[in-house]
Amino acid sequence: MIIVMSPEATEDQLAHLVEVIEGAGLKAHVSRGTERTIVGAIGNEAKIQQVPFMAIPGVESCMPIVKPYKLAGREFNKEKTKIKIRDIEIGGKEVVVVGGPCSVEPNDTLIQTARAIKKAGAKMLRGGAFKPRTSPYDFMGMAEDGLKLLADAREETGLAVVTEVMDTRDVELVYKYADAFQIGTRNAQNFNLLKEVGKYDKPVFLKRGMSMLIKEFLMAAEYVISQGNNDVIMVERGIRTFETATRNTLDVAAVAVLGVETHLPVFVDPSHAAGDHRFVNALSRASVACGCDGLLVEVHPNPEKAMSDGAQTLKFSKFEQLMDEIRPVAEAVGRSV
Amino acid sequence: MIIVMSPEATEDQLAHLVEVIEGAGLKAHVSRGTERTIVGAIGNEAKIQQVPFMAIPGVESCMPIVKPYKLAGREFNKEKTKIKIRDIEIGGKEVVVVGGPCSVEPNDTLIQTARAIKKAGAKMLRGGAFKPRTSPYDFMGMAEDGLKLLADAREETGLAVVTEVMDTRDVELVYKYADAFQIGTRNAQNFNLLKEVGKYDKPVFLKRGMSMLIKEFLMAAEYVISQGNNDVIMVERGIRTFETATRNTLDVAAVAVLGVETHLPVFVDPSHAAGDHRFVNALSRASVACGCDGLLVEVHPNPEKAMSDGAQTLKFSKFEQLMDEIRPVAEAVGRSV
Amino acid sequence: MIIVMSPEATEDQLAHLVEVIEGAGLKAHVSRGTERTIVGAIGNEAKIQQVPFMAIPGVESCMPIVKPYKLAGREFNKEKTKIKIRDIEIGGKEVVVVGGPCSVEPNDTLIQTARAIKKAGAKMLRGGAFKPRTSPYDFMGMAEDGLKLLADAREETGLAVVTEVMDTRDVELVYKYADAFQIGTRNAQNFNLLKEVGKYDKPVFLKRGMSMLIKEFLMAAEYVISQGNNDVIMVERGIRTFETATRNTLDVAAVAVLGVETHLPVFVDPSHAAGDHRFVNALSRASVACGCDGLLVEVHPNPEKAMSDGAQTLKFSKFEQLMDEIRPVAEAVGRSV
Amino acid sequence: MIIVMSPEATEDQLAHLVEVIEGAGLKAHVSRGTERTIVGAIGNEAKIQQVPFMAIPGVESCMPIVKPYKLAGREFNKEKTKIKIRDIEIGGKEVVVVGGPCSVEPNDTLIQTARAIKKAGAKMLRGGAFKPRTSPYDFMGMAEDGLKLLADAREETGLAVVTEVMDTRDVELVYKYADAFQIGTRNAQNFNLLKEVGKYDKPVFLKRGMSMLIKEFLMAAEYVISQGNNDVIMVERGIRTFETATRNTLDVAAVAVLGVETHLPVFVDPSHAAGDHRFVNALSRASVACGCDGLLVEVHPNPEKAMSDGAQTLKFSKFEQLMDEIRPVAEAVGRSV
Repeated sequence: MIIVMSPEATEDQLAHLVEVIEGAGLKAHVSRGTERTIVGAIGNEAKIQQVPFMAIPGVESCMPIVKPYKLAGREFNKEKTKIKIRDIEIGGKEVVVVGGPCSVEPNDTLIQTARAIKKAGAKMLRGGAFKPRTSPYDFMGMAEDGLKLLADAREETGLAVVTEVMDTRDVELVYKYADAFQIGTRNAQNFNLLKEVGKYDKPVFLKRGMSMLIKEFLMAAEYVISQGNNDVIMVERGIRTFETATRNTLDVAAVAVLGVETHLPVFVDPSHAAGDHRFVNALSRASVACGCDGLLVEVHPNPEKAMSDGAQTLKFSKFEQLMDEIRPVAEAVGRSV
Repeated sequence: MIIVMSPEATEDQLAHLVEVIEGAGLKAHVSRGTERTIVGAIGNEAKIQQVPFMAIPGVESCMPIVKPYKLAGREFNKEKTKIKIRDIEIGGKEVVVVGGPCSVEPNDTLIQTARAIKKAGAKMLRGGAFKPRTSPYDFMGMAEDGLKLLADAREETGLAVVTEVMDTRDVELVYKYADAFQIGTRNAQNFNLLKEVGKYDKPVFLKRGMSMLIKEFLMAAEYVISQGNNDVIMVERGIRTFETATRNTLDVAAVAVLGVETHLPVFVDPSHAAGDHRFVNALSRASVACGCDGLLVEVHPNPEKAMSDGAQTLKFSKFEQLMDEIRPVAEAVGRSV
Repeated sequence: MIIVMSPEATEDQLAHLVEVIEGAGLKAHVSRGTERTIVGAIGNEAKIQQVPFMAIPGVESCMPIVKPYKLAGREFNKEKTKIKIRDIEIGGKEVVVVGGPCSVEPNDTLIQTARAIKKAGAKMLRGGAFKPRTSPYDFMGMAEDGLKLLADAREETGLAVVTEVMDTRDVELVYKYADAFQIGTRNAQNFNLLKEVGKYDKPVFLKRGMSMLIKEFLMAAEYVISQGNNDVIMVERGIRTFETATRNTLDVAAVAVLGVETHLPVFVDPSHAAGDHRFVNALSRASVACGCDGLLVEVHPNPEKAMSDGAQTLKFSKFEQLMDEIRPVAEAVGRSV
Repeated sequence: MIIVMSPEATEDQLAHLVEVIEGAGLKAHVSRGTERTIVGAIGNEAKIQQVPFMAIPGVESCMPIVKPYKLAGREFNKEKTKIKIRDIEIGGKEVVVVGGPCSVEPNDTLIQTARAIKKAGAKMLRGGAFKPRTSPYDFMGMAEDGLKLLADAREETGLAVVTEVMDTRDVELVYKYADAFQIGTRNAQNFNLLKEVGKYDKPVFLKRGMSMLIKEFLMAAEYVISQGNNDVIMVERGIRTFETATRNTLDVAAVAVLGVETHLPVFVDPSHAAGDHRFVNALSRASVACGCDGLLVEVHPNPEKAMSDGAQTLKFSKFEQLMDEIRPVAEAVGRSV
C-alpha cells in the first residue's frame, strides 16, 4: 500500500499514520519528496486491506499494490483452468457454443431447439427455469417443471445443461437437474448466492454485472472459489453505457483483459449484449476472434413467440449460419468449433 | 403501443403484425405516412407487453405508451404516500434523518452512535448486521448478534431501526428485530428478495441499483408492492458513471423525477454517493433543497477504526454540523428537520 | 511518480527503468516489497510527465503523485478567485444568476427577456449568436447580428452579456461585443479555442464536456490560464450517463469537489442538465445549497416558440418563481441572490 | 412524429397542439386510446423537427419517426460507399490498415515507421502534426514541419497520408500536404471544423466522440456531407464508460450497427480503445471479424520513447504480428488484408 500525504499534513498526522501501519504488523517506509510525503506500507497487504486510510487525517490518496483477487488471479495459477462438463472441455482448444431459448416454455420449444442446435454443432443447452424479469407481471419461468424439461432434453440429445439459479433456497434443486449453474447479471453481486453455489461441485457460469468493473467481476468469482468451487466460467455479456443502439455495450476487450488477469475460461453472451438478432452473428465472430472460450446464444424455433427476449433470439437457420460463420474465425485464431 | 414499420416492410408483413395485435385482443390502427407506415395497438397494453415486436419481420421500432409501473406510479395514487415507522412519519413535512455506522460492530460503537445522533436530531438508527462486501475476505457483519444490538439501542434511545437484509432466508429473522428492511444496491434487482419483503408488513428502504434507470427502480418497487407491501421508500444513492472523483455520481435530479413519477417517499444516501466524508454535508444540503424526504447518513465515533466504509463516514461533530446545515435549507423549501 | 513492477520483472528491466528516471534528472528510489518492487521517482515530476512508463517492459502500473493542473489548482492559490464582470463580482458572497434565451432570435425575444430577468433579479444576460446544433439543418444563430442585439440589450438594461464562441476565427468578433466568453460543452477540449480565448482579457465561462472527468475539466481551464487569462468560471452542466429520464445527469457533487480542487468560481447550468423545464427549479435549489457561485438559466417569453432548447426553457413567471425559491436557499447557506 | 398527451391534458391543449402541427403544414391525426390520446403528425417531418413539442402544455412524450440523418443514412444510398485515396479503395473487399506514430516527431521516427509498416502490409501512414493534448504543457506537434515530413515519407514509400486537423484556420494547410483529413475525438462535434473540411475534396476520417451516440456520430458525418464532401470514413475508437481497465471501451457492435445505418465505410482504432499495447492485437482481430473496413494503428520504432501515447503503441515486430493475425481473420469473413 502506498499512501500519499497532503501537502498540509502535519508531523503528528504522519506519526499517527505510521503508528496505524505498524500496529497492523507492517513496516512503514517514509519518503519525503519535494512536493509530497509518501508512505509505503511494507509487508502482508491483506492485513491492512480494510483500514480506511482515506479517513485518517492528512492522507490525500492511497493505492493498493497487490490485486484484491487471489484465487481467481493469474498469479495464483499461471496455467489456464480447464473445466469438464460431462464430456466437454471448457477452456481448451475448442470454442464451446451453448444455445437455447431464454426461458424453458410449457411446450416443445426446448426439445426442438435442443435437436436443432445439436445438429448445428452446439455442445450445451441453456434455458431459464427461474427467470429474473424487470416486471413482476411477466412470465417468471416454470421452476422445477422447467428443470425437468431440461433434464429430458439432455437425456434425448446428450447435450449438457446449464440453467440460472436466482435464490439461495433453490441451489439444491437446480444442482439436482443441471450440469452447471448460471448466475445472472442482476445477481452478480448477490454474495450469499455466490457463496452458496461455491459449496457445490458443479461449474458456475458467472455473468458480469451490468456496471461491474472487471476487478469486481473477478472478486465475484473469488467469492465462489473461496468456498471451494474452482470451476468458474466468466461470461462477458455487455455493460450498461450511454449508448442505446444496442441493449448493452459488448466490452469485447474484457475477453483480452481477463485473459491476462485470470486463469479462468471466458465466455461471451452476444445475445444480451446486442439485444437485437441482427447483430448477434457479428458480435459472435468478434468474440471468437478476440479469443473467447465459448458463446452463450439465445435460440428459439419462432422468436416472435418466445416468452422472453424474442428480439435478440436467433431462429434455427440464423443459428446454423452463426455456426458456419464462427468456424473459420475460430480456425483463424488457432481454435476449433 | 406504437409500431413503426421499416420502409422496406411488405404488405404481408404488415398483415401479419395486424394479426398478432388482433390475436391479443387489441385493435390495430394502420396509418400510412409519406415515409413510414405506423401501426397503433389500441386497447389494454398489458396484454401485449410481452410480445417481442422487434422480432416480427418488417418492424423497425416500437414504443410503449403506458408506463410499465402501475402501483408505484403517480397515476395510481395522486396523493403522496405517508409511511409510519413507530412514531415517525415518512413523506410528511419533516425531513427524516437516519444515521448510524455502516456495520454493527462487536463493541459499543452502535450505542454510542445512537446516543449521539439522537441528541443531534436524527430519528432513526441504521447499521448493517449482514454486510455485502466486494471481497469475500472482508468483515461480513455480526448477523443475529448485530440485530440484537440494534434492538438494544432502540430500547435505550427510542430510535427506530432499519437494517439490510441480503438473503431470502434471513427475511424472517430481520423482521423480528428491525422496524424497517433495507434492500441494498447490489440486490436492487434480486427479484426473489423483493418479493419476499413484499410479503411482510414493515416498510422497505429500497436503494437504487448502481446502473438502474429510474424506470427500472420503480419496477423494483412494483415488485414489493405487488406482493401487498405498499410501504416502499425509494433511496437514491448515486449511480455509476465514468467520473471517479466521487465513489458514485449522486443523481440529485432523480429526487425531482421521482417526485413526478411516483407517490412514494424519496430518500438520499449522500455517504455512498460521495464515498468521501468531505463531500457528505454538501450533498446532504443539495438533496434537501431538491426536495428529498429524508437522508441516510453513515456516522461512527471514530471513522478511521470503522470496520467498513470509514472514508465516507462522519464523526459525531461533523454529523452535528450536518444537522445544523440542513435545518435552514429544509426551512427554505418549506420543510423541517 | 510511483512505479510498480510486475512480479515477473527482471533485474535488467528494473535497471533500465532506473536509467530512464535518472536520465530525466530525477532520483529513483527502489523499494523491494514481499510481492512487488516499487520505484519512486523523486524530484520535479513535470520532467517525466510525458514518459510512457506503461510502455517500459516490466512495469505493471504507475501513479503520478502531483496533480497535473497547476495554475487552476488550489495549491497554486489558496484564496478563492473573484472575477469582475462590469460591476458584478463572481465568486463572492452573491450567487449570480445569468438568464436568457438559448439562441438570440431575429425578433424582440432577447430584449423582452432581458427586461423580465432583470426585474426578477438576474445580473447577466446570456444568448447564443453562434449555435452548436446536432443537426446541420437546424438554426445556427444570427452571428454578428445576434451579437449586436446582445449589446443593445446590455445598453438598455445594464445587464452584462455572455455569449458562446465556437470558432477560433470568431474570438475577436465576440470579444468586441460581449463581456464574457462562453465555451460550450462540445468545445470543452477544443484546445486551440481554449488557447485563443486565453489570450484575451475577458472572463471565460467554461462548460464541462459531456464525458469529462473533473481533472480533465481543470486541465481545460489550465489551457486558458496558461495563456495569461486567469478569469475562468467553471460551469457544471450535467454529464452523459446511462440515465435518460433527464437530458444529462447533473453531477452536483462536482460543485463540492471543485470547491476543494480549484480556486476558480463554479457555476451550474440546470437547464441543460435537466433538459426539461419541470426539473430546472429543483436542480437550481440543489446547486445553490451545494455551494455554487451562480446559475446559467434558459428563459424565453414563449418556450414553445423558442428556436432551440424550448423543452428545457423557463417562461418568465417560472423564472421569477425560481428566483423566489433560490433566495431563501442561498441565505440558508450564508449567501445571497 | 408521434406525440403522446398526458392523461390530464385538456381538450384545449389538444386543440392547441393540432394547431401547431397544422400551422407547420402537416396533418394531425388524433387517436383517443383507453389510457392516452395520441397525435400523429403526418407529412414532411423535417418541417417540425425544431418544434419543441415537450414545451407544449399537455404533451407527455414525443417520438420522431424519421431518422435525423439523411445523406449519411442507408435509405439515401443502398450501395456501400467506396472511397478512393490515391490507389487505395476504402470500403471494398480489402481491409485497409493505416499505421504510424501518434505524433510526427523531429527525428527519423516517421520515415523508419513508414518503411516498416509498408513492408508489413499497411497501405496508409498516419501521424499527428497538430496534437490535441490534455495538458497545455505537453508536446503539441510540429505543425507544418510535421506535414512536410509526412509528405516526404509518402514520396519515398508511396503510402498515402492521413493527419489530424484541429483548427478551422489550418484546414487549407493540411489539405496541401495530406491525402485525407482526420477529425479527432475531441473535435467530433466541433461543427465549424466539420463544415470546413466538408468544403474540400479530400476524404475525412471522422473519429467518434468519447460520449457520442451512434446517431450523433452519423449527424457529425451529415455535417461534412451537407457541405458537398461525400467521402467520410467513420472511425470507432472506443467510448467512455465506467470501466478503467482499458483507456476506453471499444464499442465493437458499433461496426455492425453502422453497417445497417449508413453506407459509409467504418474503421476501428484499436490503439485508443485499448490504451495498452497488450490488447491492440486482440481488438484488431475482433474488429476485422466484426466487419470493419480498416484499422488505424499506432506504431513506433521504440514506444517508450514516443512523444505521445507510448503505452498503446506497437513496436515494429508486434505490428508485423498484428498483420499476420488479422490476415486469416479477414479471409474467414470474406475479406483480404
